[in-house]
Amino acid sequence: MRIKLTLSYDGTAYCGWQVQPNGVSVQEVVEKAIEKATGERVRVTGSGRTDSGVHAEGQVAHFDTESSVPADKFYKAINVHLPADVKILKSEAVTDDFHACNKAKKKTYRYALYLSDVDLPLKDRYAVKIDKLPDLSLVQKVASTLEGEHDFKAFCASGSGAKTTVRTVYKIAIEQKQNDILFCVTGNGFLYNMVRIMVGTLLDVGYGKLTENDVKEMLNTGNRKKGGKTLPAKGLCLINVEY
Amino acid sequence: MRIKLTLSYDGTAYCGWQVQPNGVSVQEVVEKAIEKATGERVRVTGSGRTDSGVHAEGQVAHFDTESSVPADKFYKAINVHLPADVKILKSEAVTDDFHACNKAKKKTYRYALYLSDVDLPLKDRYAVKIDKLPDLSLVQKVASTLEGEHDFKAFCASGSGAKTTVRTVYKIAIEQKQNDILFCVTGNGFLYNMVRIMVGTLLDVGYGKLTENDVKEMLNTGNRKKGGKTLPAKGLCLINVEY
Repeated sequence: MRIKLTLSYDGTAYCGWQVQPNGVSVQEVVEKAIEKATGERVRVTGSGRTDSGVHAEGQVAHFDTESSVPADKFYKAINVHLPADVKILKSEAVTDDFHACNKAKKKTYRYALYLSDVDLPLKDRYAVKIDKLPDLSLVQKVASTLEGEHDFKAFCASGSGAKTTVRTVYKIAIEQKQNDILFCVTGNGFLYNMVRIMVGTLLDVGYGKLTENDVKEMLNTGNRKKGGKTLPAKGLCLINVEY
Repeated sequence: MRIKLTLSYDGTAYCGWQVQPNGVSVQEVVEKAIEKATGERVRVTGSGRTDSGVHAEGQVAHFDTESSVPADKFYKAINVHLPADVKILKSEAVTDDFHACNKAKKKTYRYALYLSDVDLPLKDRYAVKIDKLPDLSLVQKVASTLEGEHDFKAFCASGSGAKTTVRTVYKIAIEQKQNDILFCVTGNGFLYNMVRIMVGTLLDVGYGKLTENDVKEMLNTGNRKKGGKTLPAKGLCLINVEY
């Protein structure tokens, strides 16, 4: 039986989703919890990697099991063996052709910033401080330049093994709630550090350091050096994956 | 010169505000940071204790200094020496008769709950899970019974050294935002564990385990045993202190 899991984690203590030689990954923590719950050593396949320190509200993964635990009760059996910073929200039976990574159609990430002149202890775990407000209407206008199918090579950190750097961004929504500024980015897939570079670049637009033409040039030339900096991992959260 | 500090902390790692024989307190962390910034060993007086694990968005404290650092720049000098989970938001010069504890007129605490059948890693640091929704209109109605001047002996954990258990609660506001339920309680002062017992008792009212009469009886008899349980520290946050 193939089981689809929807899970949430606080990525602070993890080297990311995927098993790595150094550091503890969310993937291995989930695999160990399943082994404790069922006695089976399984491989859990995620919708994609999340980087070290990135959080998830709705990561999706799948695994195969011979266990007799009912699919929709599986999450409770696994959660007993998970630490407080990783929990399964939902488990469900899926057909054998479901694949958490290959069948993913849309992903939404949220990048959270907060406006303050001091680091705020109660915000700083899940958001990144900015000390002045960017021009958000300009940011939203230039963000729409990034929507659609483009070669996002200029928005990709080196070291990515992606076969193609063409992706489709369906929507970039920017919302300000008092001192919190949230970027929600939905696409068919994302390159290594892509959201963190996009938001870093758009912030520079909002501060007048980059123009709409600079962003267009990034898309045309694939030149990463033209863009803004890669923002910290802690502001990023994988919100959901659609199939 | 007397300096008033407004500060925020994530209380997770601390034994509370006040210096204790065991565990690290927020107070000593702030005192050590001031010593590093000024070379002076000072005593920092808070508006009151917050218990182990309780957070603060706007705790207030004061201390006396001979330092030549301008009062309104002091927070920056101290913050350099503070860990990420404790930060000073504001520093200002006050007259020598200002006293963070004795002159406090009103304090507001927020208690945060979230509705979920699973512990949520991204909420669980600052809020407490409930797995069913209480009747919030009933809770709000009975909460108003607690407003005003009362003997809150039944809402006080044993071990409190308070001279009197009479306090005035100005307002209890309950707000639901999707799955987040927030209790904001403003009063002239609070007994040991008072907010955590009040919210625990009001939740039992919302679940039909206690009635308005039970709550009135608690006020009349001072019997702690009649009330709901003391909710966990992590859901509680000191929002502000007024003078």
